Amino acid sequence: MRTILIGTSSEVAIDTEGPVVIIGESINPTRRKKLVTTLQERDFAYVLELAESQIRAGADVLDVNVGFPGVDDESLLPEAVIAIQEKFDVPLCLDSPNPRAIEAALRVMKGKALINSVNGKEESLRTLLPIAKKYNAAIIGLCMDDDGITNEPEKRAAIAGKIIERAVSEGIAAGDVIVDPLAMAVGAEPQACLVTLETIRLVNQNFGNNITMGASNISFGLPGRESLNAAFISVSILYGLSCPIANPEKITGAIRATDLVLGRDDYAVRFVGHFQNQP
Amino acid sequence: MRTILIGTSSEVAIDTEGPVVIIGESINPTRRKKLVTTLQERDFAYVLELAESQIRAGADVLDVNVGFPGVDDESLLPEAVIAIQEKFDVPLCLDSPNPRAIEAALRVMKGKALINSVNGKEESLRTLLPIAKKYNAAIIGLCMDDDGITNEPEKRAAIAGKIIERAVSEGIAAGDVIVDPLAMAVGAEPQACLVTLETIRLVNQNFGNNITMGASNISFGLPGRESLNAAFISVSILYGLSCPIANPEKITGAIRATDLVLGRDDYAVRFVGHFQNQP
Repeated sequence: MRTILIGTSSEVAIDTEGPVVIIGESINPTRRKKLVTTLQERDFAYVLELAESQIRAGADVLDVNVGFPGVDDESLLPEAVIAIQEKFDVPLCLDSPNPRAIEAALRVMKGKALINSVNGKEESLRTLLPIAKKYNAAIIGLCMDDDGITNEPEKRAAIAGKIIERAVSEGIAAGDVIVDPLAMAVGAEPQACLVTLETIRLVNQNFGNNITMGASNISFGLPGRESLNAAFISVSILYGLSCPIANPEKITGAIRATDLVLGRDDYAVRFVGHFQNQP
Repeated sequence: MRTILIGTSSEVAIDTEGPVVIIGESINPTRRKKLVTTLQERDFAYVLELAESQIRAGADVLDVNVGFPGVDDESLLPEAVIAIQEKFDVPLCLDSPNPRAIEAALRVMKGKALINSVNGKEESLRTLLPIAKKYNAAIIGLCMDDDGITNEPEKRAAIAGKIIERAVSEGIAAGDVIVDPLAMAVGAEPQACLVTLETIRLVNQNFGNNITMGASNISFGLPGRESLNAAFISVSILYGLSCPIANPEKITGAIRATDLVLGRDDYAVRFVGHFQNQP
């Protein structure tokens, strides 16, 4: 299955057969004080810096999250999108819990965006699916609903199925729903990765949609995070993860390596290209 | 399935259900000039140094290869084994193409060794299986035979089956055959990793034996070798690799991470232990 995203002019095709598409996570104020400070002053220079370094490191799509306590991202998100699209052509993933901020950004942006995120809650489906349809955006469907987050992979996969079904009934193409199985910290819950992996396997087998996740979550609170994230992402790709949201400056090597191992990079062209690109 | 190896007194159980057992590869003169020089003088100080650093980095078993052009490892291998066993308790993997060197080492060593390696050639089976039986050693069975190395996973797995069958008919326990599916450089052959992975899957499914391999081979000639080896080992473990031969100083992090991701390391005890141990 394929999901096409569009930047100001270029297309990025996310394909369940790979190679893996990387959604850069770094435009996100969590633990980035400098981003909060500069955004408060409506100064987008640092946002553009983060965009550039992620693209250089291998990001195909950029997640844009400019929300933090006390900010009105309903006006800030569109401004950030305009600033980024003035300089870069990559597709954007609009990341906000506020549907009005998402819609305000969609109104001003070029191309075809990814909405991060819709979930299985009635309110989320009711509010966001019509917006996605109206602006021809793809969506990330989070495997949680009004009952919260379950640890049963079958239930998570069923929520994915519900989101896909509802999206299709709103006139959105099934391929425009990218499923997020949810990745939780394995330091706190020994079964966390297994639950995510099994959800990926079920979604891939039952629906065949593209799959994303915030892969770095699993290593929260642990040492050796890069090794752990790399191992998790390699195994997840094998199960069907096709477009992780991650920090390309840390994870692109592991992703290119996994594509190579899985026979998706003949003569290691992309893999070698990545390592030749590194400072 | 389980394979028990014994050092001077301790046992190491290699289990197909994991966690992964690491066979340290570094006592090997290839690309280690200092090892050649010191071994030529029958000086084992550097061998002991390599043993110690590998054990500290997570090796459970040590591969011992002291062969290089112009050396008589028939006398050198037993001497190296004695020197190592005077200081360390870990099980050893006797690595030589010369059956007389293997037997000479088995004659002087304590515990239960692993022979690296037997293959599907008639001469290898005829010579080495009786030696393994006589000295109660486990064997690594290499998936190649008198026809050389095939790129068809089914044929590689069939060779594994033949080695297991012949071993059993010689009175060796099936569990004492550890299969090596062969890992070749992916830079030269785009399908190389896929052939190995599929062989692992077939051996795991059809025979259920423990599986080893020289995992670092695949990255030969490429940049970013650590990333590539890590990705390959994570995916291989998922398919059934249980005791890779590798450099623990480079790969233990990826292996501990994969065990953690696969639910084999509750509360990340071994994973965290590894990273706390690093200099």
